[in-house]
This record gives sequence, C-alpha cells and structure tokens, in this order.
Amino acid sequence: MLVVIALSMHAQAQSLLVEKQRFEMPSFTFFNGKTISNVTVGWESYGELNAAKDNVILITHYFTGNSHAAGKYHPDDPAPGYWDAIIGPGKAIDTDRFFVISVDSLANLGVHDPKVITTGPASINPTTGKPYGLAFPVITMRDLVNVQKALLESLGIQQLYAVAGPSMGSMQAIEWASAYPAWIPRLISVIGAAHADAWTTTFLERWALPIKIDPNWQKGDYYESQPPLAGLTAALMFITQDALTPAYFNQQGETLKHQSLAPDVLNDINAEHVITAWLRKRAEARAQSMDANHLLYLVRACQLFLTGQGQDLATGLARIQAKTLFIPATDDLLLMPYHAREAHQSLVANQSDSQYVELQGDLGHLEGVIGIAKHAETIRQFLQD
Amino acid sequence: MLVVIALSMHAQAQSLLVEKQRFEMPSFTFFNGKTISNVTVGWESYGELNAAKDNVILITHYFTGNSHAAGKYHPDDPAPGYWDAIIGPGKAIDTDRFFVISVDSLANLGVHDPKVITTGPASINPTTGKPYGLAFPVITMRDLVNVQKALLESLGIQQLYAVAGPSMGSMQAIEWASAYPAWIPRLISVIGAAHADAWTTTFLERWALPIKIDPNWQKGDYYESQPPLAGLTAALMFITQDALTPAYFNQQGETLKHQSLAPDVLNDINAEHVITAWLRKRAEARAQSMDANHLLYLVRACQLFLTGQGQDLATGLARIQAKTLFIPATDDLLLMPYHAREAHQSLVANQSDSQYVELQGDLGHLEGVIGIAKHAETIRQFLQD
Repeated sequence: MLVVIALSMHAQAQSLLVEKQRFEMPSFTFFNGKTISNVTVGWESYGELNAAKDNVILITHYFTGNSHAAGKYHPDDPAPGYWDAIIGPGKAIDTDRFFVISVDSLANLGVHDPKVITTGPASINPTTGKPYGLAFPVITMRDLVNVQKALLESLGIQQLYAVAGPSMGSMQAIEWASAYPAWIPRLISVIGAAHADAWTTTFLERWALPIKIDPNWQKGDYYESQPPLAGLTAALMFITQDALTPAYFNQQGETLKHQSLAPDVLNDINAEHVITAWLRKRAEARAQSMDANHLLYLVRACQLFLTGQGQDLATGLARIQAKTLFIPATDDLLLMPYHAREAHQSLVANQSDSQYVELQGDLGHLEGVIGIAKHAETIRQFLQD
Repeated sequence: MLVVIALSMHAQAQSLLVEKQRFEMPSFTFFNGKTISNVTVGWESYGELNAAKDNVILITHYFTGNSHAAGKYHPDDPAPGYWDAIIGPGKAIDTDRFFVISVDSLANLGVHDPKVITTGPASINPTTGKPYGLAFPVITMRDLVNVQKALLESLGIQQLYAVAGPSMGSMQAIEWASAYPAWIPRLISVIGAAHADAWTTTFLERWALPIKIDPNWQKGDYYESQPPLAGLTAALMFITQDALTPAYFNQQGETLKHQSLAPDVLNDINAEHVITAWLRKRAEARAQSMDANHLLYLVRACQLFLTGQGQDLATGLARIQAKTLFIPATDDLLLMPYHAREAHQSLVANQSDSQYVELQGDLGHLEGVIGIAKHAETIRQFLQD
C-alpha cells in the first residue's frame, strides 16, 4: 500500500513505450576467476543512439529492481519504470538527446518475473542440466559492471556520457568509474555508498539470515522441492521497512496500528498485529516472482563492495576521473548520508569535481527512487556539460 | 567485544555487594484475564528501606536485562549491574538516602542464567508438569508492573519516591505512572517510548521472525528436543546491532571488516564475513542462557505497549501525575528521540512538570545503559525534591 500509493503518482505522466531485449554471452569469467557458459541478461533502452555513439547514459538498478528504469511495456501498465520521472523526452535525463540504457543484473532478484532476464543460481547449469544453486560463482559489483560493458561493446559503444543509479545501482556506477575511468566522464550516485562498511555488512546479513534458517532452503538446493518462502518473505519485510522511515510508516500505518489492539494479539502469541500482517502480505506477494538464493548472492555482492574491488577504499576512489554528483537522502536509514558525504569528501580531497546534495522527505532511502524528481533540475544541470 | 570493552570501565568503580532474592505468589491474574498459579520472580535492592517506607526508587529493566541494576554478587565479578554508574552510595541515585529495588521481569530472556528468577513459557506448568510453552498467557507491561507492585506491597510499601528505567524499563516506568498515578510522584524515562507505534511494532517483529522460521521452534514446543538456537542467535545479532550506531560499530569493527575481503567470502557463498562471524559468536554465547519463547513474549509485550494499556495514548498519558524526566539518546536507532519528545510534549500540553534532555554519543540506544552517567547530575537534581 505505502509504496503503491506513491508510485501511482508517476502513472499520471506520459511514458515511453519500451521493450525488454536479450543479451547473450557464450561464456563469462567472474571477478573471482570462475567461468560459466551461456550468460544471458535483459536490457532496455530509451531514446536513440547517435552516429558517434557518444550520447549514452547507463542506468544501474537497485537491489530489488531490474532494468525497467523508465517507460511502459504497454500503455495500460499500472506504472512506468522506477525513474520515469527523470527519464524521457524533455525530462532531466532527456531521451531527445541521450540514448539511455539499463541492464538486468546477474542473479536478479525478480528471476520469476516474466519481464526479467537474468542468469544466476536459479538458472540451469548447462553442464548438469539442473539449476546451479550455490554452485553459481559468487558475484561482485565488478561482475555486474562487466556484463554491462560487454553489452555496450556489442553495440559499438566505447565510452559513456554518464552512469547513474540508486542504492545498489550507485555501487555499480561508482565501480564503473573506478574500474574503467576512461569510460566514465560523469557519475551520479543516488542513495549510495562507495563501500560496505562493517555496519552495512552486518546490516545486510539480516536479509540473508531468515533464508538460511528456513528449513526449506536446504543449503540452496531447493529447486526440486518447496522454496524457502518463509525466509524470503521475512527478508522482503525487512527490506521494505529498511527503505522507509518511522515518519512515513507511522503516518500510513496509523489506522492499521489501532486495529492491532484487537483482543487476538493480547490472547494468542501466534496472532499477528495488523500492521505486521499487512507488511507480510505484501512481501509474500513479491516473493512469488523472486528467488531466495538470488537474494543471498545480491547481499554478498553488496557486502563485498569496495570501490575498485581492491584492498582499500582510498586507492579505488583515487582512480575515478569522473565529475561526480552525490544525492543521498537525509533521512535514509539503510545507506545513511555519511556514506555519500565521505566519498564526496575523498573525491574533493583528490581535486575531483564533486557535488553533494541531499533529498529531503519522509520516504528515507526510497526518496532516491520515488522522490528522485525533487532533484530533477540538479541532475539536468549536471548533465548539461 | 564492543559492549564488553565499554562495560569494563564500570568495573573500576567501587560497587555494593548485593544478593538476588525471591518473591513468590501463589497465583497471578494477567491483564488479559488469564490466571496461573506459582509465579516467582527474582529481585535485588540497594540501600535501606526507611521506617516511613517513603524512600523507595524502583528500577525497571531493559529487554535483555534483569534486576541486576547495580552492585556485584561477589567482589571479583567482572562487572557490576548495568546502572552501577548512577546507583550507589553518593551516586546520582544515592543509596545512602534511597532504598533502590529492581525486579526480574516475567518471561525474562535470561531464564537459564543462574542469577535470574522468572516465570514464563519455559517454566513448569504445575497442572501439566511440563513447560508452558505457548500456553503461557500473553504478557503486557501492565503485568510486569503488577508483579512489581505485589512485591512492593508485600514489603509494606504503598508509594514510590520515583520509578526509573531504560528502554523496555521506560515502558514499565511510564505504565506505572499511568496505571497507578498515586504511587508515582517522579518518573524517569530513559531511551524510552510511551507506546509502540506502527514502525516499532514491525521493527520488533524482526526479532521474532527468525525464531518462528527456525524448524526447531516447533510452535514453541521444543523443551524436550533441540531449542531454536539458530533463530534465537539471529534475533540477538539483530538486537545488538539495533542498539548501536554505524559510527560506533565501524570504529570498533574496522579491523574485522578488512579481513572480510579474504578470499573465502569471494569464493564461497556459505563463508561468513569476519564482522558477521564476530557478531554471531557473541550472540551464540548469549543465547545459551536465554529462551526463544521468552523473547517472543517480551517482543509481544513491547508491541502491545500503549501507556495505560487502554484504547488511546492521550488518555493514558493524561492519567500521569508524576513530575517527569525524559532522557532519549540523540543517535538512538531503535527507539529514536521522537518517542520521548512526543510524550514529553503531550505531558507539557497537559500542564505536567516534564523535562527533556538527550544523551549524546556514538553508542546510540546503548547510551541509555552504558552512557547514563553523562546525565548523572540531571538525574541527581531531578531527585532532589
């Protein structure tokens, strides 16, 4: 309810019509050195690639998201892609000028969503004919970046105009700028972080723990039995709350909360508060299109994130040549503004051109997705030159 | 490690020697109307009860705590009770003047700690000869208060000089002041809340979820088999992190974090980051003295909390006659300062005498336990008259 209400505002705006496309690689070697064959991901684009192929903006998506960053598949879709407010003709990321492209991540959480194309633990391992499960290689932000780079190169692209993404998308964007600095003249990090510090590493582990405790998980080998839906549902309940704030949650949840004084919760420890039941129902519905192992792999990729994927943050950040714009959300409880502030300060200390502005609002972390239009003008200006 | 280091500072100070005592009731009727027989809880006291019995300060404990608020059982105990910095001869809560008393909660989390005496789901039901499990009545803050009241009355006490407690202890303290206003002329609420709002209700549910997913939980009927230690451990990992802040956690965890770039987490999804392993090890050790069902009952008691345990907050707060001191912690992520600020503002609007000061510091919620001495003088002044 919370998020659905907010998203429906976007549906008012005119949207592009878009199509999911498929990119296949005969083989892919991961950052950790392992190689698998038949890696396929989905992608979308908005606007036209110019002849010089120098008008490309890559959008990197968040943890529970996919490459549907803007537009609609059908005019009667209930909502457009998540950043439709800033991507489109005449918008901040202007598709009259830019060729905007976005790619489904490896191990994408929404693997059972018919509009998502991904390769991950739930995919069939061609050498066994069965799903990989935990035999799938551990992934890092560098791997997500490398898949995107392979797709861009297949289109003849050799440099981006800019890369931009929220949350886990910010990690990919920063990794791009550090791993391939010549590719990235402009970087926009929204509600992001340049590394997973100790706090974030254990904080993210919370999303993994309920899955690992679920008896149906069976060390990831559940593809021929019942999936660990209870654990996955709990993880999604955590994710939804972590991305919001008390102010927003209480405002929306007040009616529900009052009903939680009903006699059942006072008399039966198994009874559930109305507000918890609401959160659970929403998570259960989302879990249907998602895979628990994919969630574990994305958690690990975020935990392993360190700009440049080397041994220390300073070295990784020092490689960045891009002009940078950081947009954290003031009341973000998941990736608090200190992450962006510290990265910004490091870049400034390195004589880089870096800007820092905050998103205000009760949505907390989600301001970076749903509230992004508040800084549409900042983004438009940043992309001017 | 984090908390142990900080607590060891207390060990420097001279401590009272104290003894755990036992209070038995032949029967007890819960707020929800259910009655059980043979309810026993532990208690401790510091200082002497005067002849008029009008020098009593009740200390109500936090979620993972017990009645060991001050002093040591033996001179060579590694640490004294949790608020020893402000309870003792000449301290802010001066045991040369006050008789300070504290009581183990019903369903106390540390039921297997030899120094805790409690009655809860793990206790033997005298009518079946087996542990209650989920047949134990749902508890509320009012029930914790009513047990304390019965103990005080058994000592001939008819009014308190003050009640004070941190976190869940603050909920009990506020409930005391609303349920029995004539008893409570002074109330100190530390890192507390006057009700569990929608955010807090679902936030607390996180601590319950891993237990309910653990296959060993068996709907609470595990006393003749393996207890749900994986779920309980996960809950305790969450609790520890929720009570701290990124600033403190990262500072202490930085060395551990760097080791998390070791090859194992990059190559094996089952491998654990060093920082997570540290948090888990600590939680596993604590879980040995704790009971998973007790945790569920305390979560529910906190979720059900609404000052006065009636239908609305305003009515409950309007019953309070006490002079009140609210001490939230500025960087508390578990019960953020808005809880105390809103309760304080309601009392002021009711023409009550209410003070509000914040605890500064990197410990977040734990400032209210470990950092309480920062406001020792505020507390001393508040108790002067």
